[in-house]
Amino acid sequence: MGTLVEEIFSYKLGRPVEQGETVVTEVDHVMSHDTTTPLAMQAFRKLSKLTGGKVFDKERAHLVFDHIIPASTIAAATLQRDIRGFAKEQDINILQEGICHQVLPEKGFVTPGSIIVGADSHSCSYGAFGAFGTGMGSTDIGVAYATGRSWFRVPATINVNMTGELPFGVFAKDVTLEMVRIIGVDGANYRALEYSGDLVESFSMSERFTFCNMAIEMGGKAGIVAADEKTVEYLRGRTDKEYPMISARNPKYERVVEIDASKLKPLVACPPDVNNVVPAEQVEHVKIDQVFLGTCTNGRLDDLEIAANILRGKHIHPEIRMVIIPASREIYLEAMRRGYLEIFAQAGASVGTPGCGPCIGRHFGVLAPGERALTTMNRNFTGRMGDPTAEIYLGSPATVAATALTGHITDPRNIL
Amino acid sequence: MGTLVEEIFSYKLGRPVEQGETVVTEVDHVMSHDTTTPLAMQAFRKLSKLTGGKVFDKERAHLVFDHIIPASTIAAATLQRDIRGFAKEQDINILQEGICHQVLPEKGFVTPGSIIVGADSHSCSYGAFGAFGTGMGSTDIGVAYATGRSWFRVPATINVNMTGELPFGVFAKDVTLEMVRIIGVDGANYRALEYSGDLVESFSMSERFTFCNMAIEMGGKAGIVAADEKTVEYLRGRTDKEYPMISARNPKYERVVEIDASKLKPLVACPPDVNNVVPAEQVEHVKIDQVFLGTCTNGRLDDLEIAANILRGKHIHPEIRMVIIPASREIYLEAMRRGYLEIFAQAGASVGTPGCGPCIGRHFGVLAPGERALTTMNRNFTGRMGDPTAEIYLGSPATVAATALTGHITDPRNIL
Repeated sequence: MGTLVEEIFSYKLGRPVEQGETVVTEVDHVMSHDTTTPLAMQAFRKLSKLTGGKVFDKERAHLVFDHIIPASTIAAATLQRDIRGFAKEQDINILQEGICHQVLPEKGFVTPGSIIVGADSHSCSYGAFGAFGTGMGSTDIGVAYATGRSWFRVPATINVNMTGELPFGVFAKDVTLEMVRIIGVDGANYRALEYSGDLVESFSMSERFTFCNMAIEMGGKAGIVAADEKTVEYLRGRTDKEYPMISARNPKYERVVEIDASKLKPLVACPPDVNNVVPAEQVEHVKIDQVFLGTCTNGRLDDLEIAANILRGKHIHPEIRMVIIPASREIYLEAMRRGYLEIFAQAGASVGTPGCGPCIGRHFGVLAPGERALTTMNRNFTGRMGDPTAEIYLGSPATVAATALTGHITDPRNIL
Repeated sequence: MGTLVEEIFSYKLGRPVEQGETVVTEVDHVMSHDTTTPLAMQAFRKLSKLTGGKVFDKERAHLVFDHIIPASTIAAATLQRDIRGFAKEQDINILQEGICHQVLPEKGFVTPGSIIVGADSHSCSYGAFGAFGTGMGSTDIGVAYATGRSWFRVPATINVNMTGELPFGVFAKDVTLEMVRIIGVDGANYRALEYSGDLVESFSMSERFTFCNMAIEMGGKAGIVAADEKTVEYLRGRTDKEYPMISARNPKYERVVEIDASKLKPLVACPPDVNNVVPAEQVEHVKIDQVFLGTCTNGRLDDLEIAANILRGKHIHPEIRMVIIPASREIYLEAMRRGYLEIFAQAGASVGTPGCGPCIGRHFGVLAPGERALTTMNRNFTGRMGDPTAEIYLGSPATVAATALTGHITDPRNIL
């Protein structure tokens, strides 16, 4: 008996495991991307002299190019060249068709009950599939590449119980921002967040992804939803692997947070903290220079669909620019087939190649001093998208699309 | 009587004008882009104190964002922010839907007999429409913004007579490279290149664009084709302006270059000079790290079609990366409707938002030290796409697409 996280570790270790224990266990998959792999390679090389020079399993070691791809500087190109050399040496197929957290699930690597470590803080996203996913430093990831193992202190769990129907104009991202507002940016430090409730069950895999992705914005080690029929359905055709359907059994939660979504309005997180959340209608006076729809938080097909329905047949405001980047090639192609990309291009948006885009301010929409962006990203930290005097606001795909039409922050209920 | 260029200046000035004369004349359109506008603005501001502070005609002054858009650095974003301020002050609509040289013709601004100056060396491209287009420094463009006038030394003309049918696998770009090989990188310094012959007449507007675009690669002041029914057809629906159908009358050419295209093979310009041209089959051993299809030279619908026909249902070589960027939003949308973009994405290419892409090495495919690219660009200068030890080869869209499939330079006749 235990929380979902305790049950996963118990399953993995074949014995009951309790929160607070420090355990060493095999991991199912290890991941790093173009900006974290170079350091992971260094750590790997030091250790791998002792372990034979090869990664633990080339089918479970994943190098993803997503952060600065195609390369925007000689420095980035050089790092990518070096990673390609490493991949060739290790016979690893570099994944370069979208954001790591989107591509790993699409490839069927993320299954319920699995443990996945990634050299990226948003590796908690994998919790959407009932997996324990967590971000680690590049050095730890280098060790995991060499040994296929890692150590964990099994976290205590905060249960977030989401109930109620979403009101008109309110989306999973708004519920997520409400959660961060309540819990705070350090309110879940080294805790797991276990999501439950009618609303969570009603959510699509993509919507679950949004709030699992943002667990780290509260300091969470993991954000996790028990697998159900929707999880199984998503994985059908993507993997032949058998996986356990694990759920919490008589769990002891450190805290339970109740969110009744039926009372929510469209929300916006104001700079410079993710928990600085207010109703969108309160900040409609804020003029915006750039909107960005995409990222591992909200760059999936349903997100693009929401925006396409708002932008169809319209043109963005002449004083705003709009960047749209599907999270993966699979999403890009399906969005093209459904006509969303055509709607976006006709509306005057710049549609980018799948990847992280301007989320970390390294290309494709860097902000100038004093500019303001509203984005579907997970972070609004000072300087993240460019100049430190630029400001980042976070909102749902609907709020972003509505704002694209008006040039200032706009409650999507006024447009929908 | 005179060359096509003499006839255009004679029409403009209302008196016979001969090569060698220095004239001052009104210009029809003035253009600068995101990397050249800042200096043009400085020159404009100095002079405009005397001329009232406004550009000569806001409908004929064009600010285009294409070189580093969306911005890849804070510096680029800051320049663009400042240009937006200038555009607002001058009530100019910034064009941000593709490469300047593609967008100006699409908007119907480039008409036969017009004179167009741009703060970009490839402004000679406008010659495809029987216009006199030429690149100038940003200071000269600033003066033109203020006064609507510029000075020209009317150039002598080299006539390039292109005849013969294109052999299998040979395209307008190959004919262009053959021309540069014959004339040399400084063989047309301050000359106009006037293109004529059966082959030129048979070429589409897009194909004419390719060799007009590359006039500057021989030092040419202009590259020009007399307008004909194809020109009129292209402009139908794009402009209501009346324009003269000007052609050369008993011209005195400084030199006539004959090119019989029927004898050509697919060609490649090797680094670091555009006239370093060899048959593709002679350099098939050269391994390529990145191919790039796009630019003002070869980023149009017919170019994309050629590549789509080669890539349909196939995947690029695992050790190469492919960047494809339609030259304008109009082309992007039509390529999407025709299924080319889907073919490209399925083949593993990164399809970018319309613009110059990695052509000047500022984003979206910068080369690392020692890497090699084959591209449809117009220039293979040392360091243009990134590190100075990287090498750039130039070829046709077919050669680029064939190379994408093999990972080394490939004569497209082996793939088509």
